[in-house]
Amino acid sequence: MDKVQTQAISTLRVLAAETVQQANSGHPGIALGAAPMAYALFETMNHCPKNPDFFNRDRFVLSAGHGSALLYGLLHLFGYGITKEDLMQFRQLYSRTPGHPEIERTPGVETSTGPLGQGVANAVGFAIAESMLAAKYNKEDLPLVDHYTYALCGDGCMMEGIESEAASLAGTLKLGKLIVLYDSNDISIEGNTSIAFTEDVARRHEAQGWQVIRVNDGEDIDSVKAAIRLAKDEKQKPSLIVVRTTIGFGSPKAGSADSHGAPLGKDGIEALKKNLGIKGKPFEVPAEVNKFMAGVVDSLNKNESEWNRIAKAYKAKYPEDFEKFNAEIKGKAISAEQLENIIKTTDKVDASRSYSGTILNQIADACESLIGGSADLAPSNKTALKDKGDFCAENRTGRNIHFGVREHSMAAICNGIALHGGFNVFCSTFFVFTDYMKNAMRMSAIMNLPVTYILTHDSIGVGEDGPTHQPVEQLASLRCTPNIKVFRPCDSRETKAAYISALTGKGPTAIVCSRQNLEYFEVGADADPLKGGYIFADSESEVPDVILIATGSEVSLAMAAREQLKAAKIDARVVSMPCMELFESQTAKYRESVLPSAVRARVAVEAGSSMPWGKYVGLDGGYVCMDGFGSSAPANKLFEIYGFTAENVVKAAVKSVRACK
Amino acid sequence: MDKVQTQAISTLRVLAAETVQQANSGHPGIALGAAPMAYALFETMNHCPKNPDFFNRDRFVLSAGHGSALLYGLLHLFGYGITKEDLMQFRQLYSRTPGHPEIERTPGVETSTGPLGQGVANAVGFAIAESMLAAKYNKEDLPLVDHYTYALCGDGCMMEGIESEAASLAGTLKLGKLIVLYDSNDISIEGNTSIAFTEDVARRHEAQGWQVIRVNDGEDIDSVKAAIRLAKDEKQKPSLIVVRTTIGFGSPKAGSADSHGAPLGKDGIEALKKNLGIKGKPFEVPAEVNKFMAGVVDSLNKNESEWNRIAKAYKAKYPEDFEKFNAEIKGKAISAEQLENIIKTTDKVDASRSYSGTILNQIADACESLIGGSADLAPSNKTALKDKGDFCAENRTGRNIHFGVREHSMAAICNGIALHGGFNVFCSTFFVFTDYMKNAMRMSAIMNLPVTYILTHDSIGVGEDGPTHQPVEQLASLRCTPNIKVFRPCDSRETKAAYISALTGKGPTAIVCSRQNLEYFEVGADADPLKGGYIFADSESEVPDVILIATGSEVSLAMAAREQLKAAKIDARVVSMPCMELFESQTAKYRESVLPSAVRARVAVEAGSSMPWGKYVGLDGGYVCMDGFGSSAPANKLFEIYGFTAENVVKAAVKSVRACK
Repeated sequence: MDKVQTQAISTLRVLAAETVQQANSGHPGIALGAAPMAYALFETMNHCPKNPDFFNRDRFVLSAGHGSALLYGLLHLFGYGITKEDLMQFRQLYSRTPGHPEIERTPGVETSTGPLGQGVANAVGFAIAESMLAAKYNKEDLPLVDHYTYALCGDGCMMEGIESEAASLAGTLKLGKLIVLYDSNDISIEGNTSIAFTEDVARRHEAQGWQVIRVNDGEDIDSVKAAIRLAKDEKQKPSLIVVRTTIGFGSPKAGSADSHGAPLGKDGIEALKKNLGIKGKPFEVPAEVNKFMAGVVDSLNKNESEWNRIAKAYKAKYPEDFEKFNAEIKGKAISAEQLENIIKTTDKVDASRSYSGTILNQIADACESLIGGSADLAPSNKTALKDKGDFCAENRTGRNIHFGVREHSMAAICNGIALHGGFNVFCSTFFVFTDYMKNAMRMSAIMNLPVTYILTHDSIGVGEDGPTHQPVEQLASLRCTPNIKVFRPCDSRETKAAYISALTGKGPTAIVCSRQNLEYFEVGADADPLKGGYIFADSESEVPDVILIATGSEVSLAMAAREQLKAAKIDARVVSMPCMELFESQTAKYRESVLPSAVRARVAVEAGSSMPWGKYVGLDGGYVCMDGFGSSAPANKLFEIYGFTAENVVKAAVKSVRACK
Repeated sequence: MDKVQTQAISTLRVLAAETVQQANSGHPGIALGAAPMAYALFETMNHCPKNPDFFNRDRFVLSAGHGSALLYGLLHLFGYGITKEDLMQFRQLYSRTPGHPEIERTPGVETSTGPLGQGVANAVGFAIAESMLAAKYNKEDLPLVDHYTYALCGDGCMMEGIESEAASLAGTLKLGKLIVLYDSNDISIEGNTSIAFTEDVARRHEAQGWQVIRVNDGEDIDSVKAAIRLAKDEKQKPSLIVVRTTIGFGSPKAGSADSHGAPLGKDGIEALKKNLGIKGKPFEVPAEVNKFMAGVVDSLNKNESEWNRIAKAYKAKYPEDFEKFNAEIKGKAISAEQLENIIKTTDKVDASRSYSGTILNQIADACESLIGGSADLAPSNKTALKDKGDFCAENRTGRNIHFGVREHSMAAICNGIALHGGFNVFCSTFFVFTDYMKNAMRMSAIMNLPVTYILTHDSIGVGEDGPTHQPVEQLASLRCTPNIKVFRPCDSRETKAAYISALTGKGPTAIVCSRQNLEYFEVGADADPLKGGYIFADSESEVPDVILIATGSEVSLAMAAREQLKAAKIDARVVSMPCMELFESQTAKYRESVLPSAVRARVAVEAGSSMPWGKYVGLDGGYVCMDGFGSSAPANKLFEIYGFTAENVVKAAVKSVRACK
């Protein structure tokens, strides 16, 4: 460890502390404690500051996202173009240095982090994607995809269940190129971790199939580097490097929870600089550090060229593979047009989970980049890809991922796979268990990642399994989450539309499917589910007496009610609304054509919370919805007792028509 | 192991399989595999079939809730009054034998289970409650509270992150009276667990501070009993008993995932009975088993009397303590009237999290049964109970629980504490992280448990921490969940109401608080926040031109808009709606008085998803809401750029007034 490296690390520490101080908001504790290991990693990692996106770079995930000031300091010192001015704009509107790392805002940020534990699971996803692509494309002489994935996390990440889930799967899958640095400082917000967290994290990871390497002095970057080398040498197991550090190192609050989440204050900064021997104005980088870092950056910038050489040779020797590879990593493996042709719809009466399973396999046959799996429910979710193999240590080209009963990490791992590039990824569980993985789904949404969530058993239609397994509020919960498209198809056509939208649109998509069979109806040729909401069966006159808006299994109910209303001389239109988000994105004219504002008599029919429907049915409308928990009984019995009958829809329609008179 | 015991276990197995067969739905696999250990536990546990609710009973949690047929079979054999007819009504509407165990439906069911992992965390809550009550009430000669907590779980529970979180905390807290039986059969739904779950569960638990005991032959109940004895002898560590079993034991599908979740079929049942040597009609219990079990039950029924003796002596010797104990375990530690007097409101401008913290401590001073904590955010959530000590191995009477960064298990543990009885329990985290614990909150709601969730940092008011930390859809997500009351108070009065409702009402309550200061307004004496929604500032005429409905920090915005509208000769009423659920429970007349149906010009003002407001503002109303993710910047900046200005509310109001003309 050279003196100038020590000085560079001290500079990094001061920069991070000053960044937080300038914003008067942020987290200096981890930045001061973890600076040496992060610095050591950035010195040794295969990355390229002048082109942070070159594909074969090592991925670095700051799972402890509150350590953003440390990351921005690193990006500043390592030539990523994060300027002093950027650091001074820390946590300010639209700056390149937001409170927690955000993709697309900052070069060198691989994933948005902040909610603890998510980043480690993202990293598992990166490592899965790398191993899959490598197995698929690498040729003996040309390792087109060959990189490591690093994550840095703290005690907070280690306490979260999602980390344990992700670690357990990573160990099972023998992801040898995954390396997690654990900033172990015994401190979390409420004080010493002894009050809440005495587990032996190292031993836990060993039990989960990891190699564990210990660095007892987090100040010693040579030890950190040696540990990283050991980690890289281990091909069969992911590695955990436990680095003992002092939170708030060098500051007057060193070793105390007080250093975690508040600026050090002017005096604190002064003391820190004195302790570390750093002089000069705020945000000043000592000349010798500047000079030294220039050399380091120069050397790192050469990393890309070796890969460019490989890629060039690959392209020459395997042009078709290279083209496919390129299309896949750019997310252009398949187009909407192709999907239109590939997917065959059916008029067979079946459950939408079955439509989904058939379509998923039609796509999988045509599109190699489609991979995914279920949280141990593939037979029920109908998400097994036939003859596509199981992804495991022995078969890196298997396209079925067995996530185990680990919904939360499953979704976060899929975020990592989507971020890595190269795949169209889906995951699956019972719809009600989205509650186990909501934060990871939210991260898909925040990052606008094209993850497809296949969520079956969508309502009281679940039947006998009872209220714990029957979704009620989940449709509303996902619909009110920004950026997620939520489809609840009523037939094979709408299921097809859901998949086309999911695989070719932006952001995550939830495809919510029934367990039970759905009735089939003929619709007009111009009925377009990709509009999100459309006239499924029109009224006889141009202006209907009442509009019945339904989704999924309740469309047939609305259709039956329409017949009964006809007999009562009430002219009803049935609107199927498989995806509110797409409907909202249509022109005002289109929306008006489907839901004319003059028609105030409206009834929403959906076996889920009424909440999303208020804006469509207004003060005079009616609801045939499900605002309480269900029961354990056969599904048909449940639909009956909870009012999902044509008679009840008719009643609500008549009431609404009268209210509007 | 007597022959008759073997026969009793075989009977239990057949009963469970026949129960599933009769319903043509359910899970025979675990019932057949885990029958011996469950039987052994029921023989040795301190319970009392004739009075399943006697307070000092050992608690048994079937965390693998899909094994309900096994539990019902046990309750049938062990004299809990579950009849053959009940078994035949398995999974039928309103039966005592629903698809997954449900409290209050079945004697002997301690908690509703089904979503995997929840039960283990519930059990941790039971064990915490037991140790707290024991420390508080037991006298040297009179152990008023002294019981074990058992859970039975399978591989599914073990894969879930919530289990790891709960296990880690249980080890830290040295919950020596917690004993988990792990039905280890290497099978989950997608096949052999080797594809997804190779972790060494035993070693992982050792790393988390548990004693691990192995039973290599799950058929050998003497070994199981010996393991239970060992577990009970260990006072410092929770115990995991790893019992090796065969899923679907005795059936043609033994050892296969196919036995997990589908009836065995007629032939399968026949083969099972033949293999196990059980004859007779369906649901028939052999005479010798019946006779033997009668003796077992007789003996178990005596368990209560020892405790009755202790309780009687206790009552005589410590009448005041006994009275307090009784009030607490009946959930009557404090009344609404008392709370009215204890809680002092303030007109000080402050954050609602501060109002909450003050009120929480006022209650804690007066009400010993109030306990709880945060997922490592107590200083930010303001939920530390001053001078009330930290609950830990060395201090079982500490009332602050440090849950660590484990939101999901925190909520599930609180469910366990609430189920056990003796406490008013709260837990706390940042509002956005309800997404980490949603399923456990849903379980609070399904079970109607009085858990208080204190959720601070309620909107973009979080500011610099950015979109990952800013709730948007969380208010909607909780409001659409049945049975939860969601409060978002705008001042100290409303915060007081929230606590009164939470501590004296039914079911869970979420108290959603601001990070930032809230403006203070005087309101009329008849303004009653406990109505859920009320006139905060009235219009000048009886029928206002427009109604502004707001909550929390946005009430002041509505008030400012009202002033501006006055200048524009628009007569606005401001309605504060701290709790929609309470408002909905008022009479139609009251609701009409607050929101007259004649007034269609309405604007909802809330820094969260617009979804919940559709039903109140209708087709002509306006929204000043937050339907996208936020940004990292100071909060005042964010409120401005996202349109939370009086001007914008005025604009929406004017537009709505015009639309209604």
